[in-house]
Amino acid sequence: MLETIQAINGSASFNRWAGFEVTRAQDGEAELRLRWRAEDMGQYAGFLHAGLTAGLLDTVCGFAAATVAGRVLASHFSVNCMSPAVGRSFVARGRVVKAGRKQVFASAELFAVGEGDAAEKLVATGSAILVPVEAAPA
Amino acid sequence: MLETIQAINGSASFNRWAGFEVTRAQDGEAELRLRWRAEDMGQYAGFLHAGLTAGLLDTVCGFAAATVAGRVLASHFSVNCMSPAVGRSFVARGRVVKAGRKQVFASAELFAVGEGDAAEKLVATGSAILVPVEAAPA
Amino acid sequence: MLETIQAINGSASFNRWAGFEVTRAQDGEAELRLRWRAEDMGQYAGFLHAGLTAGLLDTVCGFAAATVAGRVLASHFSVNCMSPAVGRSFVARGRVVKAGRKQVFASAELFAVGEGDAAEKLVATGSAILVPVEAAPA
Amino acid sequence: MLETIQAINGSASFNRWAGFEVTRAQDGEAELRLRWRAEDMGQYAGFLHAGLTAGLLDTVCGFAAATVAGRVLASHFSVNCMSPAVGRSFVARGRVVKAGRKQVFASAELFAVGEGDAAEKLVATGSAILVPVEAAPA
Repeated sequence: MLETIQAINGSASFNRWAGFEVTRAQDGEAELRLRWRAEDMGQYAGFLHAGLTAGLLDTVCGFAAATVAGRVLASHFSVNCMSPAVGRSFVARGRVVKAGRKQVFASAELFAVGEGDAAEKLVATGSAILVPVEAAPA
Repeated sequence: MLETIQAINGSASFNRWAGFEVTRAQDGEAELRLRWRAEDMGQYAGFLHAGLTAGLLDTVCGFAAATVAGRVLASHFSVNCMSPAVGRSFVARGRVVKAGRKQVFASAELFAVGEGDAAEKLVATGSAILVPVEAAPA
Repeated sequence: MLETIQAINGSASFNRWAGFEVTRAQDGEAELRLRWRAEDMGQYAGFLHAGLTAGLLDTVCGFAAATVAGRVLASHFSVNCMSPAVGRSFVARGRVVKAGRKQVFASAELFAVGEGDAAEKLVATGSAILVPVEAAPA
Repeated sequence: MLETIQAINGSASFNRWAGFEVTRAQDGEAELRLRWRAEDMGQYAGFLHAGLTAGLLDTVCGFAAATVAGRVLASHFSVNCMSPAVGRSFVARGRVVKAGRKQVFASAELFAVGEGDAAEKLVATGSAILVPVEAAPA
C-alpha cells in the first residue's frame, strides 16, 4: 500500500516540486514529510505558506482515505492555524474518521520539526471530505 | 493601496515561485491571478493542486483584509471544491465580510479561465478568519 | 415549491418547537424567519444560542438545496459568528452555489431584525454541503 | 470547576430547554449529555436536528475552553455529520487543542447512545474557535 500511495504522490507535479515524501500509508492512516525551503515556500513573514500548510493537510487526508477507498477527490477541507509554521521540516499525519460509500471524512495534524529533529510542535490541524472517484464526485 | 499589497505579495517567496499577480486591492476587496503550469502545479489527476487552490483563496482573503486592517495572519480557512480546477489561468476574488478589531472575516471565489480568456468558471469557494498582526494573534 | 418546503419544515419537530417559518423557497434560494424568545432560545449571555444560529443556517441551506435536488441531508456545515445575535427576530437567507449530482454546495447569511423591523444586521454566515437522499449519503 | 461550568450551563435558557447536562469539565476537557425527545428535537426524517448537533458540539467546545480561558464566545465552528443522529441519548466530548491569548481552538465528538446505554456510536465531529470575552471578540 505504501508503494501505491508513493506512486500516486510521485504522479503529482506539485508534490514533486515541493518534495512531499510519503513515509506511512496503511489502514486509513498516512504520514507526509516536507523539508523547508526559504527560497520558495514562505509567506510574507517567512513562515510556511498557507498553500503548503493546506497542501500537506489536504494531501495527507487524501492519502489516508486512499488506503481504504482508492482514488479520491477532496470536496471540502478546512485548516486551523495555531502557531506560526516555522521549522526545518514538517510532518503531517492524517487518519480516516469515517469512511462512507459516497464520502470519506478524514482529519490531520501538521507538526513543525526543529533543529536536530528533536521536538515536534503542532502548528495546524485540518479536516477534509473526500469523494471516491469511482462514485463520480459532485 | 494596490502597490502596498503588491509589495507584500512580492515579499513572499511562495507567491513569487507560483507567480501570484495582484490585480486589484482596495476597500476590502482583492483580486489575484495565476497562470497554470502543468510541470509543477498539478495534483495526481492533472488539476490545480489543492495547495494552490487554498493558497490563492487564503492569500486573496488576506489581501482583502489587509486593505482595511493592515498586516494579518490567517487563523482559519476553509475551501469548497466544486469543479475540477482546470484552466489556462485562474483568478481569485476576495472580499471582507466583517472587519472586527480582533478578527476579520473574509470570503473568496476561485475561477478557472479557459482558452481565449473568454469564460470564467467557478471551481472553488473559500472563507478565512484573519487576525491583525498588531493584535498579536493567538 | 414553497408549499412543499413548508410541509417539510412542518414535519420537523425541532422546527415546529422553534417556530421556523419558511417565507421563500424557489430556484435554489430559501428564506427562513424566527421570532426571538428569551425564555428558551438564549446562550449564557442572552444572545441567540449557537444551536439556533446553526439550525437556521443549516436548515435554510437545506431548503435552498431541496428546491433543486429534492430531499437532502447535510454532511458538513460551518458557521462564522460575526456579531452578537441579538434581535426581536431573525431572518436566514440561503442559496445554492453549485448543485452536483452527489453533493450540493449552499451558503447562507443570518440577519438580526430589531424594533420596528426596520434594519437588518448581519450576525452570522454559513455554508453547507448537502447530499441528495436518493444518492444514499455517506 | 465542574460546578462553575454547570452554573454557566444553567444560565442559558436554550440549554435548560434542551436539558443539556454537564457531566465533566476540567483541564481543557468537557462532556455534555442530552436525552432525546422526539416531540421537539427532530429534523424532518426524525434524526436529531442539526441545531442540536451543532448546539452540543459548539457548547462542549466552549465549556472545554472555559475551563482554561474563562468566559468565551465562539467566532467559528464547523460540523461533520457522519451518521444519522439516532439514539436514546447523546454525549458530546470536547477538548482544547490550543489555547492562545486571543483565540482558543477546540474540537469535539458527538456520540449516540442506544438502548441499555451499552454502545456509543460516533455521529458527528466538530471544531470551534473561541474568543475569550475579556479580550473583546471581533
